[in-house]
Amino acid sequence: MNIPLDNIHKPSLLVDEIICRENIRRMADKARRLGVKFRPHFKTHQSKLIGRWFREEGVSAITVSSMSMASYFIEDGWDDITIAFPVNIREFSEIMDLSAKARLNILVTMPETLEAFSGLLNKVSQPIGVFIKIDTGYHRTGLQPSNEDEIEKIIAVSNSNPLLKFKGFLTHTGQTYQARGKEEIEKISWEAFRQMLALKTRFGSRPIILSVGDTPACSILENFQGMDEIRPGNFVFYDVMQAVIGSCESRSIAVCMACPVVSKDASRNEIVIYGGAVHLSKESLMYKGRLIFGLVCMLSEKGWSPPLKDCYVSGLSQEHGIVKVTSEVFSSIRPGDLLGILPVHSCLTAQCMGSYLIDGKLAEIHM
Amino acid sequence: MNIPLDNIHKPSLLVDEIICRENIRRMADKARRLGVKFRPHFKTHQSKLIGRWFREEGVSAITVSSMSMASYFIEDGWDDITIAFPVNIREFSEIMDLSAKARLNILVTMPETLEAFSGLLNKVSQPIGVFIKIDTGYHRTGLQPSNEDEIEKIIAVSNSNPLLKFKGFLTHTGQTYQARGKEEIEKISWEAFRQMLALKTRFGSRPIILSVGDTPACSILENFQGMDEIRPGNFVFYDVMQAVIGSCESRSIAVCMACPVVSKDASRNEIVIYGGAVHLSKESLMYKGRLIFGLVCMLSEKGWSPPLKDCYVSGLSQEHGIVKVTSEVFSSIRPGDLLGILPVHSCLTAQCMGSYLIDGKLAEIHM
Repeated sequence: MNIPLDNIHKPSLLVDEIICRENIRRMADKARRLGVKFRPHFKTHQSKLIGRWFREEGVSAITVSSMSMASYFIEDGWDDITIAFPVNIREFSEIMDLSAKARLNILVTMPETLEAFSGLLNKVSQPIGVFIKIDTGYHRTGLQPSNEDEIEKIIAVSNSNPLLKFKGFLTHTGQTYQARGKEEIEKISWEAFRQMLALKTRFGSRPIILSVGDTPACSILENFQGMDEIRPGNFVFYDVMQAVIGSCESRSIAVCMACPVVSKDASRNEIVIYGGAVHLSKESLMYKGRLIFGLVCMLSEKGWSPPLKDCYVSGLSQEHGIVKVTSEVFSSIRPGDLLGILPVHSCLTAQCMGSYLIDGKLAEIHM
Repeated sequence: MNIPLDNIHKPSLLVDEIICRENIRRMADKARRLGVKFRPHFKTHQSKLIGRWFREEGVSAITVSSMSMASYFIEDGWDDITIAFPVNIREFSEIMDLSAKARLNILVTMPETLEAFSGLLNKVSQPIGVFIKIDTGYHRTGLQPSNEDEIEKIIAVSNSNPLLKFKGFLTHTGQTYQARGKEEIEKISWEAFRQMLALKTRFGSRPIILSVGDTPACSILENFQGMDEIRPGNFVFYDVMQAVIGSCESRSIAVCMACPVVSKDASRNEIVIYGGAVHLSKESLMYKGRLIFGLVCMLSEKGWSPPLKDCYVSGLSQEHGIVKVTSEVFSSIRPGDLLGILPVHSCLTAQCMGSYLIDGKLAEIHM
């Protein structure tokens, strides 16, 4: 890659296209090899340009988390989109507008909302797909698999309206973000898959798609045990959190924030960077016994180094980042230099920044 | 105020103009009454429109935290601006461009950076003001008051270049954010003021401005003990954090996020809202023994209610907010309703949102 170091005056989110394309290709290959449909979540990168890198790997169906994100990608020719967020009745007119331009799937967690939605529907060019969100242990949203009455009601509402089409069950095992290592991720995933398969058996008098997929599970597993579709998102960039979970090596992290050094404090071995909560987000995690907001690397015109040992972002205010470093690193860095910061959570960092620097060119993201 | 409830389809940050103007007027009055210059920090609201509300209260000098924020407000006629962030040598050309349009003050934490800056300066229409950042106990950036050699060096560099003008000492007692109640805030402030006054005595052979001001101190204190200037920012909106610190009553919080309800879970008394980390930011705080990401209120067309007892945002993912509520509130709320969320940290929430809804009209903020 080509990083125009001299032209970087403020925090800039670098994307390494080679690493990023490798991440995409690896996941697309795995999906093909293991016989599951690959419907990547585009909420991490939110970029038409990076979306095209997926298309070059044969991807034609995607997942998004908002109507405006769906609209943004439809503009670039994507026409098979699951909106993986509980359907928001207040956006009914936005959903109608988009349904004229693309095949949409919505997510339903309560019969009442689908009833209200169905009652408003009067004309769509193609039926809107309905996935039922199942809570397989994350406890954020979704019906318990045991809640067969509600599931049956949602299917019945779908079947009663020719403008709707029941597609299947969708789950997000976000509890893998608390896991550390392969075994824990596998255990969470197998248990979720068991519940999903039981639903398919129970309601399987009709074709049913089982849709799963968080980045830890999709990165680690080598067997999707009867699942039909995976929807990972974060893997496109990965981040420090995924490295800590065990989803990736740190060399697979495809984004790095270039931050100007603006001050130093020798008494605390601290470097102050221009790069704060409005750039990185306030996402933090425990790393080797410390609360951190990012790891530190050195930048060259060719790319970034592996994370520097015992160096980390220890605090963030609105525009400031405080970086704890070793004495050696401290003495090698001067105000006016750039430091690279690997983000804790790349999805939120990308959203905060609103653009990427890819081989010296600015690429806007959906906002 | 007028909230167009039916037109709100997605998370929208409401500003109550009456509360906001009261917050501005109260602080402007206090500054006049106590004989300190009022140079409010505009990083919280980042809005030309709200900036004009300050101007109507007689404010003519402001503080910002980035060059692009300075540029944005210069466009609206502000011409006396302190950039309260350690001067970033990489933005030298941006500083030069702006210095042609407004009187700027920069912040210096190390002699080396001012030497580099001074060496580049060749022509400015008016001298650039230099404040030395002093660390009076927050330990984020700034020189220790005891570090007289470095302070002397910075003053000497300023004095040696007619294009620079030494203005005084600036501190930010951000440790008040860990304080709870009047006494702790006073104790932190008195100690900081003591250190600042000692510097004025020590280096007082020239006119020196002492600039202080965080929202807790400026909200609580009734005596600035010889300080010359205050720079609070957050008070324009306040937020849950400030209410917990004791800077304000919750009725002085001037912003509230309107969030569509998209799902409910009766087994956990949880309501799922469209309103996540990309809207509120991941800022959290301990509140009555719980980690919270916001408080909950009811919305009407006229405004929002006081925070509902025992209701709070317990978790955020990218677009989802999980709201824990009482049984009574749970049964009164349906998908498609709106809930109001008072943010933990209004500065970051405003930055995440990029716009306000003020009496039904959208007001963009600097991005």
